[in-house]
Amino acid sequence: MTDKSYNFQLSEKFIINNFLKKLNLNTNGTFNFENDAAYLKTSAKNKTVVTTDTIVENIDFFTNDPPESIAQKIMCVNLSDISAMGAKPKTYTLNLSINSTIDKNWLKRFTKHLSKIQKKYNMYLLGGDISRSKEINLTITCFGESKFKNIIQQKNSRLGDDIWVTGDLGNSFLGYKIIKNPKLKFEKKHIKKLKNFYFYPEPCMFGSKASQYINSAVDISDGFYGDLQKILHGKFGAKIFRESIPISDISKKILKDNSKKIKFSDILSWGDDYELLFTSFKKNRKKLLNLAKRNKVKISLVGSIVKKTGIYDDSLNPIVNTVSFDHFC
Amino acid sequence: MTDKSYNFQLSEKFIINNFLKKLNLNTNGTFNFENDAAYLKTSAKNKTVVTTDTIVENIDFFTNDPPESIAQKIMCVNLSDISAMGAKPKTYTLNLSINSTIDKNWLKRFTKHLSKIQKKYNMYLLGGDISRSKEINLTITCFGESKFKNIIQQKNSRLGDDIWVTGDLGNSFLGYKIIKNPKLKFEKKHIKKLKNFYFYPEPCMFGSKASQYINSAVDISDGFYGDLQKILHGKFGAKIFRESIPISDISKKILKDNSKKIKFSDILSWGDDYELLFTSFKKNRKKLLNLAKRNKVKISLVGSIVKKTGIYDDSLNPIVNTVSFDHFC
Repeated sequence: MTDKSYNFQLSEKFIINNFLKKLNLNTNGTFNFENDAAYLKTSAKNKTVVTTDTIVENIDFFTNDPPESIAQKIMCVNLSDISAMGAKPKTYTLNLSINSTIDKNWLKRFTKHLSKIQKKYNMYLLGGDISRSKEINLTITCFGESKFKNIIQQKNSRLGDDIWVTGDLGNSFLGYKIIKNPKLKFEKKHIKKLKNFYFYPEPCMFGSKASQYINSAVDISDGFYGDLQKILHGKFGAKIFRESIPISDISKKILKDNSKKIKFSDILSWGDDYELLFTSFKKNRKKLLNLAKRNKVKISLVGSIVKKTGIYDDSLNPIVNTVSFDHFC
Repeated sequence: MTDKSYNFQLSEKFIINNFLKKLNLNTNGTFNFENDAAYLKTSAKNKTVVTTDTIVENIDFFTNDPPESIAQKIMCVNLSDISAMGAKPKTYTLNLSINSTIDKNWLKRFTKHLSKIQKKYNMYLLGGDISRSKEINLTITCFGESKFKNIIQQKNSRLGDDIWVTGDLGNSFLGYKIIKNPKLKFEKKHIKKLKNFYFYPEPCMFGSKASQYINSAVDISDGFYGDLQKILHGKFGAKIFRESIPISDISKKILKDNSKKIKFSDILSWGDDYELLFTSFKKNRKKLLNLAKRNKVKISLVGSIVKKTGIYDDSLNPIVNTVSFDHFC
């Protein structure tokens, strides 16, 4: 999240394309590692959605972050992948690699927070492993079940599809900025709120509820533009109504007050929102808006899928600076 | 493997019992974290066996170990757990946390070896995650399917059961000893063979083949005595015919030549054999021996389950020094 850059030769994409893809044997459910989650066919009728994510000390979180925040993040990255597949989380395994800085109090707080999240999403811990390590390294593998027959795929967007985004983007980014650069102009009353977005990101679980209306979906964990590119997968382009991209009033004010230091495009290149970006046939607009209202989820229509590859603004000018990161499950 | 000791308060057992057990919500399939694997009920008829293991640089392997050896170990620890549940491996996810010492050549060799193991066991890679870290940290979560209705549980041993062991014990331990202490007396011709046992442990996959005859099973990853205690689970005891514990002729010679430096009991307190320890009704003896013969698996009858808790030798003297490690899935 803070820095996922490798040298060019060993980017995640390079490793996946050159070494790991050979190992999936083109099996259904792996999506050739071009999805953020996979599925396991467990019988003629049943599929179990599987996703796994690792977070590492000083890369994805800091050593002295509250244990509750670390628990929230490792769960959140997995849950939003399950949601993007149109599935509901069911259970998870946990691999804890911990060092001597971890004491009973840390474990108590960490597991208490996991318990809270479990309750919220009706999950339980299936098993795991504990190892000793120099740096803290946490893996969760999350299992979900799909309400409908078809699991949502990232690459199933259709020409002319509406592009939707849930929630507000950029809250986590601005929270991080406050922590790293206290000289930025923020109103005191907003500090706690924004820090909370950074420390306690909430996954948007709208995927399973709306899966019947969704053609393709991805969780925004790698930046809006980067994740949008996954949906387009080099086949289509996107026209984005930049004014429609949802950001909170607080964020708008902060961008205005710090216009030389933070740009709107920064927000869109940063991950950790854990909102959903999805596409849907135009005919589903009303149904989606009603469903979102009933589930108290904010959704915004931010653009549409066009024929010409690339990402364009309202005036069809190409939007550049679309950095992102890669995953494979 | 080389050193899994924590301070007393934060042993794996302590963490599992005090913090993690609360999270399984007593759900079927978790075995209250008292098994080395778990299962996920995917439909009325189907169960998917799940196990997950992490290995960490300088704890479970050394930085300059051949990448093939590291691939072998991370697969092996998972496969033997699947086997101990009476299941056949099907697929797996891989979480790679790697640092800048990992280059293309390392990845090529590592994944080529994974591919070789996949072919052997008819598996494919389902997905995973790549992270950057200071130390190499690898997690595999392995999924298996059971041939028969009943999944083997560690704690289902019965009074009077035969206790069986597959293969030979101690080969990996002696391989490790050669590497660490070249002053020990070894015949040159045995060095490569024993080192290979240490670097390339082979999981015994007899579990799924024999599951209908097995009451309880565990893979020997934490030492014979330690894993035996899991089978006994404080309810029963075991009488062990020490002379029947299978060790190779090479191991016998090495123990004889280094009697002051290596004891027989050392072999039995060391894990990484990845053989199976299982119990079965006495009436199954002949069937098991035939099945093992057909599958070219060596099995040895090493004792029986007795009423009095504890581990005893042939003369019913208690055997002490039964150190081991704990896991929870």
